[in-house]
Formats: sequence, structure tokens, C-alpha cells
Amino acid sequence: MKPRLLTPGPTPVPEETLLELAKPVFFHRSAEFRSILAETIQDMQYVFQTQNTVLALTASGTGGMEAAVVNTVPAQGKAILLIAGRWGERWRNICKSFGIEAVSVTVPYGQAVQPSQLREALAAHPDAHAVFATLSETSTGVSHDIAAFGQLVAPTPAVLVVDAISGLGAVPCKTDEWGIDVCVTGSQKALMLPPGLAYVAVSNKAWAKIDANPSARAFYFDLRKYRDKLKENDTPYTPAHTLIKAQRASLKRLRSEGIESVWARCALMARAARAAVAALKLELFAQQPSDSLTVIRVPEQIDGNAVLSKLEKQYGIKLANGQDSLKGKIWRLAHMGYIDQFDVLAAISALELVLLEMGYDRFPVGAGVAAAQQVFAQAWAA
Amino acid sequence: MKPRLLTPGPTPVPEETLLELAKPVFFHRSAEFRSILAETIQDMQYVFQTQNTVLALTASGTGGMEAAVVNTVPAQGKAILLIAGRWGERWRNICKSFGIEAVSVTVPYGQAVQPSQLREALAAHPDAHAVFATLSETSTGVSHDIAAFGQLVAPTPAVLVVDAISGLGAVPCKTDEWGIDVCVTGSQKALMLPPGLAYVAVSNKAWAKIDANPSARAFYFDLRKYRDKLKENDTPYTPAHTLIKAQRASLKRLRSEGIESVWARCALMARAARAAVAALKLELFAQQPSDSLTVIRVPEQIDGNAVLSKLEKQYGIKLANGQDSLKGKIWRLAHMGYIDQFDVLAAISALELVLLEMGYDRFPVGAGVAAAQQVFAQAWAA
Repeated sequence: MKPRLLTPGPTPVPEETLLELAKPVFFHRSAEFRSILAETIQDMQYVFQTQNTVLALTASGTGGMEAAVVNTVPAQGKAILLIAGRWGERWRNICKSFGIEAVSVTVPYGQAVQPSQLREALAAHPDAHAVFATLSETSTGVSHDIAAFGQLVAPTPAVLVVDAISGLGAVPCKTDEWGIDVCVTGSQKALMLPPGLAYVAVSNKAWAKIDANPSARAFYFDLRKYRDKLKENDTPYTPAHTLIKAQRASLKRLRSEGIESVWARCALMARAARAAVAALKLELFAQQPSDSLTVIRVPEQIDGNAVLSKLEKQYGIKLANGQDSLKGKIWRLAHMGYIDQFDVLAAISALELVLLEMGYDRFPVGAGVAAAQQVFAQAWAA
Repeated sequence: MKPRLLTPGPTPVPEETLLELAKPVFFHRSAEFRSILAETIQDMQYVFQTQNTVLALTASGTGGMEAAVVNTVPAQGKAILLIAGRWGERWRNICKSFGIEAVSVTVPYGQAVQPSQLREALAAHPDAHAVFATLSETSTGVSHDIAAFGQLVAPTPAVLVVDAISGLGAVPCKTDEWGIDVCVTGSQKALMLPPGLAYVAVSNKAWAKIDANPSARAFYFDLRKYRDKLKENDTPYTPAHTLIKAQRASLKRLRSEGIESVWARCALMARAARAAVAALKLELFAQQPSDSLTVIRVPEQIDGNAVLSKLEKQYGIKLANGQDSLKGKIWRLAHMGYIDQFDVLAAISALELVLLEMGYDRFPVGAGVAAAQQVFAQAWAA
């Protein structure tokens, strides 16, 4: 059976990048590595759409999130958290671990935090040091209007910190234009690499806050150390340098496609997936869906876990389950990174077949794939 | 030219491990990953020579060191630091970053901290929460008597924390027998993997201290979270799971050789390197040298940096320079991991040739390689 990975991270990695990982290991304090790091950082600035400093951390995305928290918010400081799912909750949990006063703006799973809610929170808490948001809330498939958040935060003393881990490089995320002060991402989603690297883009407004932060709660995640070493195209601690070298290969692919084309392709796949969901008489879980993944509500009387298991065992198609309280209630299908429109088509085809097998017959056979194909054809004709 | 990497991290990675890294990416919340993690942890317990909990962190070795510090020592607590070089200094810098009172026991570069010095420090500071030591001080090539440290720390309330990053899997490090409460290592030295993973072995004595530590200064490095998730063979945050899978391949190699055989092989290479150093009328930098690397003092009137540059450019042999104040003053040659006796022989041969070229003629041509070969022959005859 041919496996197809369509989970919202890790995602498939291009063959040329995998082959980079199989090359002999080289020394990390060398002209070779400095040149690779410089190139990778430059390409990441392109992906972030920023002139800000971009730092590479050897860590999961959560490590990048912790770095954003402990560097920008002093101990006992206050932060506004926009929470629409598990990843917004992660911001809150990190803040709590470091004694930060967390002002939570929460919406039910499946909904998005609205700019008006942030406006109210900022008015009520003018002393907040930072606003923590999520570009694409992967746990529910929700997208946030970061541009609007940026306009609200910019005139305040607070910095806007965005978890763009599962969105950057798949959906528009214009760090500079939108006023994102700290933008965090991870290597294992749209950046087409295995997990192990986090990237953090830091604005001048954020640096001013970081440099003025007297609290000593970071060593490994002290962003100032990374900034200082980056001046020599180096890192403060031994980096996962073979991953950085492989990252360069994936970013070369991304650059040659062009970021606008990548966004358009992910949007196309999202439209196709949503059309298929509608044709199969299924429902989207997210009210304001992200273009990086499609989250489908499991219909009543269908065993959601069994469907995922059959998709994988019978057809090699790997989708992700819901997490925690959403387990068995949603299916999550990613369309970003090295997942293309025909992978999405394969997933829809397999989903149709499994649904038929499970006795869910509210659609004519082929309705899902035909609906997706219609979207592809319209894009081709345009 | 054929490149040969003999730096004390990163070290060469076996071909079968590199090929694992080139395989398609798989999902990390899966039975496949849980089984891989369980196997890797079990093999790491063997390498650590421990029954203690072993945790895998996605981070540089320094991340593992920070985890050891912030989990075991409460804020404003006191710690004794045994410092013989740059890595001992790293313990101190981490402690200072987190407001820990650091009692430093320091010896000049090239010397080792003696057990008697630790005895005095423990007597003077019975309120110390932890003693931080370094198995193999890679910056100077010095080895420490961790077994003796363990005997001194065991009867006290303090825990013994050891940076075994560049020694574990190369030289004896008997975590349980020696009473190491927290033993930290990294993937990129004797464990034959690229950088990106840190491992931490934690004793019951250390867990008691960690569980009683009220300070909230860790989220990503909160070891309790890793312990809890490990019960399900899982990790709290997205791990560098392809590195963990590849680690399994390198550990399979290590297990099939047997840890005692690995130690014996590294010791043999160390003896050969030291014999060559003596035959070339050079000097060792370390008074109590580690078997994982040989650190050679650059002779007067020789440009140490130029020798390293020629070794690399003319012969493909990569040794490491000294760091910071030792730059240009020492050469560091590793013999651990996937470096074998003939790699060491190649390095000695190239070093002879470069020294001759530089006008250093205090040895008969071939004296270095012959001395090493004598050691190999004696081991073969034994």
C-alpha cells in the first residue's frame, strides 16, 4: 500500500530534502554552516514576509512559543490571550507556568476570536504587555484575522505575538504589513521539514520590550543570545544543523514556486476540500476556516475513530483525529506543505469509499471527487 | 578529497542511520512512534547504565542542562558547580540566568576538579541543592572522577547532576552504580546522530526534589510533563521524531557492539592518539585526559590555526580548534562514536605531514603513525 500523510503536521517532506538529511554530517562551526544559516534565515524572512530578525531555535514549535512569552512579558506582567482551541490554550498554559497574569478571551471550539473582542480586552487592560494569538488554530481548523488584530495592537504599548506554526507558508501571513511583533513557526508543517526547528521573527518594537525586560527566566530560549550570534551567522548553542541544511532545500522549492502561488494553491485545495465536504453532505467544523487544513465534523451515527482507522489500514490515507475532547468528533485533513491537489483528491476518494462501507449513503458515489474536480477545473479555466 | 570529521561533536553518523533520515516522514501520534520511542528509551537506559527514567528532549545538549537546573534547584537555591572549562562554565551561566546561588569550584584549564575539592565544598555548603559536574570537559579534554563525586554526594541531601554530553557512550559512565541523579547527554557525540536531541536520566532522589520544587520556571523543559507522557510512550510536545527513529538505528549498532567493547575501543584509540602525541614530541593539554578526545597543546612557534586549516584543505581532516581564549592554542581530536582507529590513524598521518610542512621537525617521519600502530598491535596481541 502506498502511504499518504495528510495530517496537519508532521507533513510529507520533499524527496530532495530527505536526501539532504542522508548526507554525511559536517562541522557546525564552519564557513559552510554560516553560509547555510544565512541563506536559510534570508529565505525564512521571505516566507515570514518580514525585514525583522528571524531566529532559528532547535526545539518544537512550543519552544518557540515559550521563547516568545518569557522574553516579551516580565514576571507578574499581564498578557491578553485570544483562545479558540488547544493552541490558544497552550499560550495560556505557558503564561501560567511563568507567573504571568493571563487575561483570556475565549470562544467555543469551532469559532474564531473576533477583532471586536480584542478591542474590548485592550481597552479594559491597557497595561497588557502582549497579545497572544493563533494564525491557524489547527485543533479546530479556524483561521484568525491577524491583520485586524495587528491594527488594534499597533497603537498600544503591547506587542502582538502570533503562533503561525501551522499556517506560515500555507496561508497569507504578512508579518511586517500586519504588524506582527513576534511571529513563531515550526519546521514540520508548511515548511516541509521534519520537526525539530522553530523560527521566531522579532520586530523592533518587540526587541525594545525584550531588552527592557529585567526578568531572568530564559537561558536556552534567551532570544538576545540568538540575535547576538546571528550577527556572525552563528547560533549560541549547537543547532540541529543538518535540519537547517535540509530546510534550505525545502525553502528553495518554496521560493521557486513563489509565496503567492503557494498561498493560491493552498486556497485552491481548501476550496476543493470544502466543496467535497458539502457534496458528501458533511459539515465543516470551523466557522471561519483556515486554508491550511479542513476540519470535518463527524456525522451522527458514524464512528469517527473507525473511519480514520479504515482510511489508514485499507487505503494508506492518514488524516488526524481531534485532540482531547474533540477526539472521535472531527477529522482533520491538511493541505499545505508538500501535499498537493491530487493527494487531497485521493483523500476524498478514500473517505467516500469508507463512508459508503460504513453505511453512510447520503451522497451519490463520486459526488465528493467530482465536486473537488469542479473546483480544480474552474481554477484551470480562470 | 575524502572528508573525515574528527571533531568532538558533531561526529560522523553511520550510513544506515543517515538512510533512516531519508525515509518518508510518518505521523508522530501513532503506535509506530510509541514503539520506536519505547525501544529508544530502553536502549538509552542501557547506554546510561541505569534503571532510572530516561527522557528525550528536542533540544541541544544545553537544553538538557537547563532542564536539569530549573527542575532540581528552586529559585534562590544554592548549587555547587565544579568547573574545569567552558562546559562547567555553562552550568554556572545557566544557574545565574535563573537566579540560583552558584558556589563555584574552579580549576585552571587543563586540570580536573579533584574529589577533595568537592568534599570541602559540600562541608562548607550543606544547604546546596545540587552539585553540577562534567564527565568529559570537551573544551580541555579533561576527564572527571564522577564515581568519586557520587560517593561524596550520595550521603547528602544534594543531587549529583552530570553533563555527560560528550562522554556518554564513549567512556564509562555508570549512572546507577556511581549515583548520578541527573545525567544529561546529547545526540551528536558518541550516540552517532546529528544534533537535535538531548536525553536526561533522572533518579528517584532527583524526582523527589523535582516534585517538591515549587518554583514555576519551566514549561518546555518541565521534566514532570515528559515523565507523565512517557507512561504512554509519548512526549508532551511534537518531538523530532525522525531523529528519534534514526537514533534507534545508531543505538542498535552500539548495542550489538556492546557498551564495554565501545569503552575499550575508545580507550584504545585514546592510548594510540596519546602515544602518537608523545612520539611527535607534542604535549597533551589535559592533565587527566578523557578517552573520548585527545587535546594537543600547539607547540610554540607553530601557528595552530594554520595547521587546522591545512589539515582540512589539503587532507580533508577536520579537527576542532580551541574555543574562546584557547583558540589557536590547542587542537582537539575526537575518538568516539562512528570514528574508528583507522580514522585516528589518518588524522595522525595528516598531522605529521602538515607539521613537517610547517617546519616542525622534532620527530622522525612516521614516528606518530608507528607509535599508534604499536598500541593497536599490542591490543591485538592481548
